[in-house]
Amino acid sequence: MKTLNVGMIGYKFMGKTHSNAWRQVDKFFPVSAQPVLHTICGRDKKGVTAAAKQFGWNHVETDWRNVVANPEIDVLDINTANDTHAEIAIAAAKAGKHVLCEKPLAMNVREAATMLAAVKKARVVHMVCHNYRRIPAIAQARKMIEAGDLGRIFHYRARYLQDWIVDPEFPLVWRLQSKIAGSGAHGDINAHIIDLGRYLVGEFSEVCGRLETFVKERPLPGSKSKKGRVTVDDAVITLGKFRNGALACLEASRVAPGRKNHIQIEINGSKGSLIFDFEDMNRLKFFSRADGADRQGYRDILVTEGVHPYVGAWWPPGHIIGYEHTFVHTVFDFIQAVVKGRSVQPTFEDGLKNQQVLEAVEKSSKQRRWIKL
Amino acid sequence: MKTLNVGMIGYKFMGKTHSNAWRQVDKFFPVSAQPVLHTICGRDKKGVTAAAKQFGWNHVETDWRNVVANPEIDVLDINTANDTHAEIAIAAAKAGKHVLCEKPLAMNVREAATMLAAVKKARVVHMVCHNYRRIPAIAQARKMIEAGDLGRIFHYRARYLQDWIVDPEFPLVWRLQSKIAGSGAHGDINAHIIDLGRYLVGEFSEVCGRLETFVKERPLPGSKSKKGRVTVDDAVITLGKFRNGALACLEASRVAPGRKNHIQIEINGSKGSLIFDFEDMNRLKFFSRADGADRQGYRDILVTEGVHPYVGAWWPPGHIIGYEHTFVHTVFDFIQAVVKGRSVQPTFEDGLKNQQVLEAVEKSSKQRRWIKL
Amino acid sequence: MKTLNVGMIGYKFMGKTHSNAWRQVDKFFPVSAQPVLHTICGRDKKGVTAAAKQFGWNHVETDWRNVVANPEIDVLDINTANDTHAEIAIAAAKAGKHVLCEKPLAMNVREAATMLAAVKKARVVHMVCHNYRRIPAIAQARKMIEAGDLGRIFHYRARYLQDWIVDPEFPLVWRLQSKIAGSGAHGDINAHIIDLGRYLVGEFSEVCGRLETFVKERPLPGSKSKKGRVTVDDAVITLGKFRNGALACLEASRVAPGRKNHIQIEINGSKGSLIFDFEDMNRLKFFSRADGADRQGYRDILVTEGVHPYVGAWWPPGHIIGYEHTFVHTVFDFIQAVVKGRSVQPTFEDGLKNQQVLEAVEKSSKQRRWIKL
Amino acid sequence: MKTLNVGMIGYKFMGKTHSNAWRQVDKFFPVSAQPVLHTICGRDKKGVTAAAKQFGWNHVETDWRNVVANPEIDVLDINTANDTHAEIAIAAAKAGKHVLCEKPLAMNVREAATMLAAVKKARVVHMVCHNYRRIPAIAQARKMIEAGDLGRIFHYRARYLQDWIVDPEFPLVWRLQSKIAGSGAHGDINAHIIDLGRYLVGEFSEVCGRLETFVKERPLPGSKSKKGRVTVDDAVITLGKFRNGALACLEASRVAPGRKNHIQIEINGSKGSLIFDFEDMNRLKFFSRADGADRQGYRDILVTEGVHPYVGAWWPPGHIIGYEHTFVHTVFDFIQAVVKGRSVQPTFEDGLKNQQVLEAVEKSSKQRRWIKL
Repeated sequence: MKTLNVGMIGYKFMGKTHSNAWRQVDKFFPVSAQPVLHTICGRDKKGVTAAAKQFGWNHVETDWRNVVANPEIDVLDINTANDTHAEIAIAAAKAGKHVLCEKPLAMNVREAATMLAAVKKARVVHMVCHNYRRIPAIAQARKMIEAGDLGRIFHYRARYLQDWIVDPEFPLVWRLQSKIAGSGAHGDINAHIIDLGRYLVGEFSEVCGRLETFVKERPLPGSKSKKGRVTVDDAVITLGKFRNGALACLEASRVAPGRKNHIQIEINGSKGSLIFDFEDMNRLKFFSRADGADRQGYRDILVTEGVHPYVGAWWPPGHIIGYEHTFVHTVFDFIQAVVKGRSVQPTFEDGLKNQQVLEAVEKSSKQRRWIKL
Repeated sequence: MKTLNVGMIGYKFMGKTHSNAWRQVDKFFPVSAQPVLHTICGRDKKGVTAAAKQFGWNHVETDWRNVVANPEIDVLDINTANDTHAEIAIAAAKAGKHVLCEKPLAMNVREAATMLAAVKKARVVHMVCHNYRRIPAIAQARKMIEAGDLGRIFHYRARYLQDWIVDPEFPLVWRLQSKIAGSGAHGDINAHIIDLGRYLVGEFSEVCGRLETFVKERPLPGSKSKKGRVTVDDAVITLGKFRNGALACLEASRVAPGRKNHIQIEINGSKGSLIFDFEDMNRLKFFSRADGADRQGYRDILVTEGVHPYVGAWWPPGHIIGYEHTFVHTVFDFIQAVVKGRSVQPTFEDGLKNQQVLEAVEKSSKQRRWIKL
Repeated sequence: MKTLNVGMIGYKFMGKTHSNAWRQVDKFFPVSAQPVLHTICGRDKKGVTAAAKQFGWNHVETDWRNVVANPEIDVLDINTANDTHAEIAIAAAKAGKHVLCEKPLAMNVREAATMLAAVKKARVVHMVCHNYRRIPAIAQARKMIEAGDLGRIFHYRARYLQDWIVDPEFPLVWRLQSKIAGSGAHGDINAHIIDLGRYLVGEFSEVCGRLETFVKERPLPGSKSKKGRVTVDDAVITLGKFRNGALACLEASRVAPGRKNHIQIEINGSKGSLIFDFEDMNRLKFFSRADGADRQGYRDILVTEGVHPYVGAWWPPGHIIGYEHTFVHTVFDFIQAVVKGRSVQPTFEDGLKNQQVLEAVEKSSKQRRWIKL
Repeated sequence: MKTLNVGMIGYKFMGKTHSNAWRQVDKFFPVSAQPVLHTICGRDKKGVTAAAKQFGWNHVETDWRNVVANPEIDVLDINTANDTHAEIAIAAAKAGKHVLCEKPLAMNVREAATMLAAVKKARVVHMVCHNYRRIPAIAQARKMIEAGDLGRIFHYRARYLQDWIVDPEFPLVWRLQSKIAGSGAHGDINAHIIDLGRYLVGEFSEVCGRLETFVKERPLPGSKSKKGRVTVDDAVITLGKFRNGALACLEASRVAPGRKNHIQIEINGSKGSLIFDFEDMNRLKFFSRADGADRQGYRDILVTEGVHPYVGAWWPPGHIIGYEHTFVHTVFDFIQAVVKGRSVQPTFEDGLKNQQVLEAVEKSSKQRRWIKL
C-alpha cells in the first residue's frame, strides 16, 4: 500500500490527539494510504523527544523549517499555538505539502486569506481540524438537514461552556494572552460553534456579539504574588442571522461551573428539531412533526449503529466512543482526500469564513452594533 | 375570617387559571382572608356566564366599569387582552381596589408608568402576575442566590420556546396582531424570562435584541382562502448586560418544534450554577464548586420537600405539582399582602421595569445596536 | 343537572386527595352528574370537622355506619386504614351505595372475595382507587399496547421506590404495623405496580418474591426511648410470569435514598418499548423498531397534548399537571359509570386479583419458591 | 524497559478490543513493562492473518498449543469461545504463562475450579477480563462505597439489556448454541452484573432466577429456509441476597428494543445512593443524605476529572472516553501485576465465584426455588 509520510508541528494537547489519530486510523478505517509517523517537531527538545517516544514518531525536529524542507514529508499537520499557523502553513504549501491545520486557522482574516491563497496556488489539499464536524451525531445531523428532515431552518442555538478558569487564581497561561492566542473563549471555542453553524445551517449574513473578561488579572505562571493582565475574553455572547433567514444565538464561556466541555446545539426548523450535547456525544435528539400526533417527542438516538456515519468502524451498537475518535475520523477523510486529490471540508476557505465571522463579532463588540458580513 | 371580594375581568385561558387559583388557595394555604369569587366579567355574555357557572363566580358582568364601580369588590384581577390593562387598572386604582394584573403589564412604557403612578397615588396593593416567580424551584433558586451559593453571577441564559404557530396555516388570532397583543413572543414569553432575570440576577443595564417574523402572512380566523399580515414577532433573540456585570443571553420563540412550554434557565456564578426547565418544573439542578473534587456534579433536586418554598402545602415528597399551582401561590401571597397592607413582588414597578427592557429590545432591533437602560 | 351525594370515610392524606378530586372534577370535566360533598366521616371529631371546613363538606360524621345508613348518600368513598375497608364496603353495598375504595382493596384474599361478592350481589358500581392507571402517560401507554405498537410483550419491569423510612429513627407509625396496614411496601406500593402490570400487560400466572425488613425496631410514636418491633416489610422484590409469557421483575422499597415517589416502568415487546417514571409523570418514552434505521431512539413524549387521554381538559401543551390530577380523572370516570350504570375499571374484581398476587408473593417469600396463581 | 511478550488466542470481537488495548496502553499509562504484540492465534489462517496485519501482531499461529509451548511468550490472553477457555488456560498455567481470560471464565463451576487450581499451582498471575470493573465511574463507585459514603447497603439492582436478537429472523449463531456458549444472556451479560454486584456490594448468599427463551427457533446461519432450535436463554431475571443482607434484583435480556448495551445499576444504602448507566458511562449519579435538606438531589458526576480513577490519563475534563478504554485500563493493571508479581482483581477465584452464582441461578430456574450459595 502507498504510504503517506506525516510531519507534525506541535506535540502538546493537540499533538497527543493527532498522534493518536495517525496511529489508530488504519486499524479501524479502510485507508487508501498508510500513514507513517515520520517526524514530530517542537521547540523543546526534551519534550518533543518524549512525545516521539510515547507515540512512536520516527524522527524528531526542533525547527519546523526542517520538516517543511524535508522532501520525504507528504503532509504537514500543524497544531502549534495560533500565532504560528500562518507562517508554517504558507511555507508548507510552497513546499508542496498537503496541510492539516488546527483551528482557529489564523490570528485574523488577513492571515487566513493569505493562507488560503497559498494553498490554492500550490494546489495542495488543505483542511482545518474542526474535529467536531466528524462526531457521528453531528455528521448524522447534517445528513438529516440535507435530506430536508427539518424543513426550513428557523433557529440555531449553540453553547460551548467550560469552567476551567472560573477560579480567579488560575494562572495567566498562554491561552489567556492575546498576543499568542489571539482571543480567549472566542477563537478557542466560539470558533467551533460558529463552524458547526456554518456546517449545519449555512453562511452568516450578520452578527452582533460581545466579549467579556470577568477576571481582569491573574497570577503569572509559576508565580504566586505577581499578577498580569488578562488580555483575552473569558466569555462571548453572539446573535446572528444566516443568509437563509435563520437566527443564531451563541454563547461561549470558560467560567460556567459544572460545564466541562459542554457543546449544546439545538436547531429548529419548520418540520422538526435536532438537539446535540457533546458531553453525551453519542446521542442525537430528533423531533419530527411528521410523527403521529399522540406520539411525537424528541427521539433519543444512540448514534452507535452501523448505519450512522463513521461509528460502525468501531464497536457494536451501544458501545460508545469518545472525544479522540473525532480526530481519527478527521484524519481518515484527510488521507482519502490526499490520495484521491480531492477537496475535503472544512477547507482553508471554511477557515477563512470562520475567521471573518470571528472578526465581525469582535468589531461588533467594540462598536456595540450589528455587523454585516 | 375576614373575606375579600374578588372581581375578575377576563375569563378565557388566564381567567381559567385565576379562577382555579382563587378557588383553591384557601384549601391548601393559611390565608388571612377568605377570597370570595364575587364577580366575573367578560364582553361576551354567554361565554362569561358559562365561565361563572363552571368555576362558581357569584355574579356576572359584561362591562368592567360596573365591577370597578361596585363598592363590594375589594380586589380587581385583570387578565384581559394586553391593550386593556392600563385603562382598567387605572380605573380600579382610582376606585381604591387592590389590583392583580396579568403580564405584560402594559402595551408600552408610557402606559406602565401611568399605571404605576395610579396605584401609588391610590395606595393600593399592586402586583403583576408573573406566576413563574412562584414555581417552587424558582423561589428556591432565588433563595440560594441570595444566600450566596452561586457567588458572583457571570451568566444568565434563558430560553422560552414553544411551537404552537410553527404551522404556517395556523390562523391570525389576536395574539398575532400587534394592535391587540402589542408584540408576539416578545411581550408574551420573552417578558417572562426578562422578569425572571430581574428576579434572579438583577437589573439590566444594556440590551441588544432582534425580533423576527418568519411567517409573514397567515389565514384570517374562520377563513381558509383569505390571508392577513402577521404584525408581531414569531421569535426574539436578545443579549444583555446586568448592572452587576453578568451577561444575559435570551431566546423566545413560538416556532421551535417539540418545545411546548420550554423555559430553560441556566445561571453560572463564581461558586456554582443552577439549571431549571419548566417542562420539568419540579426540579432544580445545582452545581457547587464546594463539593468534594471527585464528587462534583449537577444535583437534580426534586423540589417537593417540606423545606422547599410553597410546595409543602400540597403533597408528600415526590408527588409533583403542575402549572396551575403557580397561580395559587401567587394569589396566596397577594391575599396576604392585601390583608397586611404590605407590598408584594412583582409590583407594578417591576412591571414598568420589565416594559422598559421590552421597549429597549424593540428599539435595539430597529436600530441594530445596543441600547442602554 | 342530576346530583350525586358523596359520603367519604377517612379524611387524612387520601381524604385530602379525594376531597380535592370531588371538588375539582366538574370544573374541568364534562360530568353527567354534579357531585355534592355531602358528608365526611372520621373518628376524630375535631380533625374531621377541620377537614370538612377546609374542603367544603356539608356534613360531618364520626361513625361510618351513619353515613352508610343515610338514604341521601349515593356513593361511598372509602379511604380509611386498610383493615376497615371490608366492613365498610360490604355494609355500603348492602345499603345500595356505589363504592369507590382505596387500595389495597383488603387485608387478604378472603376479605377481597367477600367484598366482591357483596358489590356484585348489590349490583352497585364498584371501583378500586388505583389512581395511577389514570396518569395520562399510563393511559396513553395502555392505548399503544392495545393498538399493538409494542407487539408481543417480553418484559415488564417496575420499581416503586421511596425513602421516607430510611432513617432508623423514623417512628413506628400505623403504616409500619401489620395489624393495621397488613403489610409495608408490599401492600402500599408493590400493589400499585402489580396493578399496573395487570393493566398494561395481563394476568400473572406465577410469582416469586421476597419481603425484607431491614430496620427491625423503631421508636414508638411520641416516644424517644421506647422502641417497638416493625411488623411489616421495608422492601419487597418479585419475579413473575404473565399468562402471555412475559416476564416481570418488580421492586418496591421505602429505603432508597433520593427516590421520593419513583415509579419507573419499562415494557419491552417485539416491536418496541415504553418507559415511564412517575417523578416525570407528564412524559412517556417510546421506542419503535418501525422508525427508520438511522433515526430510531426513545421518543420523549410530553403527554400534554389534546390528543392524549384526560390531559386536554386541563391546560395547553407543555403546561404540566401533577399528582392530584390522577384522582380527578379517577373520580370523573367513576361518576360517569355511576350515572350510566356501567362497570368501571379497576373494579373490585381487579382488587381481588391484585390481592391474590400480593398473597402469592407473601406465600412465596415464606416458602422460598415460586407460587402459581 | 522490560518487555512482555503477549500471545493472544482469538481474534474476533474480543480480539479486536484486546489488540487495541495492548497497543494503546503504553501510550497513555505508565506501564512498568512494554507489552509486545508477539503472537496472535486463530483457527482460520486467513482471518487471523488479516487481524495480525491490522493490529500489528508480529507472528501468527493457528494452533493455540504452539503459542502455549513458545518459551518467548510471557502472558496468554484468551478471548476465544467459552467452551475452550479451560483447556487453554490450564495448559498456559502449566507452561508458566500469566493468564488473562475473557468472561465467563468457564462453562461451569467444575471447569472454573480446575482452572483456578491450575493457576494457583503454577503461581502465575491470573485475571478474568471483567472490563466493566475499570470503567472510571464504576471504579469511583467502588471507592465511594468503601469509604462508607453509602452506609449500609440495602439494594443492588442491575439491568443489562440489549436488543440484537429481538428480530426472530436473526440467525442461530454460536452465541445462541448452548454447546459452545454455555448459556445465552445469562453467561454473556448476566455474568457482568453479577460480577459488578460482587465487586460493589459483596458475596451472594442466595439466589433465585429464571431463564427464558422467547424465540424458540431461528434460521440456521447462511440458510433462509432451515431453522434450528435455540438452546440458550434470551433473558434471565434474578433475585438475590448478599451475605451482608442487601437484596439484589437483576435482569439480563437480549430482546429489549432500544436498549443497545444498557447496563443500569442502582445501589441504595442507608446514607445514599449511586446510579450508573453504561450508555452514559462517563457519568455517575450520587445522592447523599448528608447534603443540606433543601438541596439534596442526585449529583450527575461527569467522571472525567484528574481525580477520578484511570480517566486522567486520557483527555481533559468533559472530553469523554468510550467502551474500548475499559480494556486498556484492564490490561494496564494486569501488566503492573505481572511485573510486580502480585494479584490483580478480578482473579480466577472471582471467576469461579461468578460461575457458582451463575450455576445456582440455573439450578434455581429449573427447580423453581431459591438456592443457597
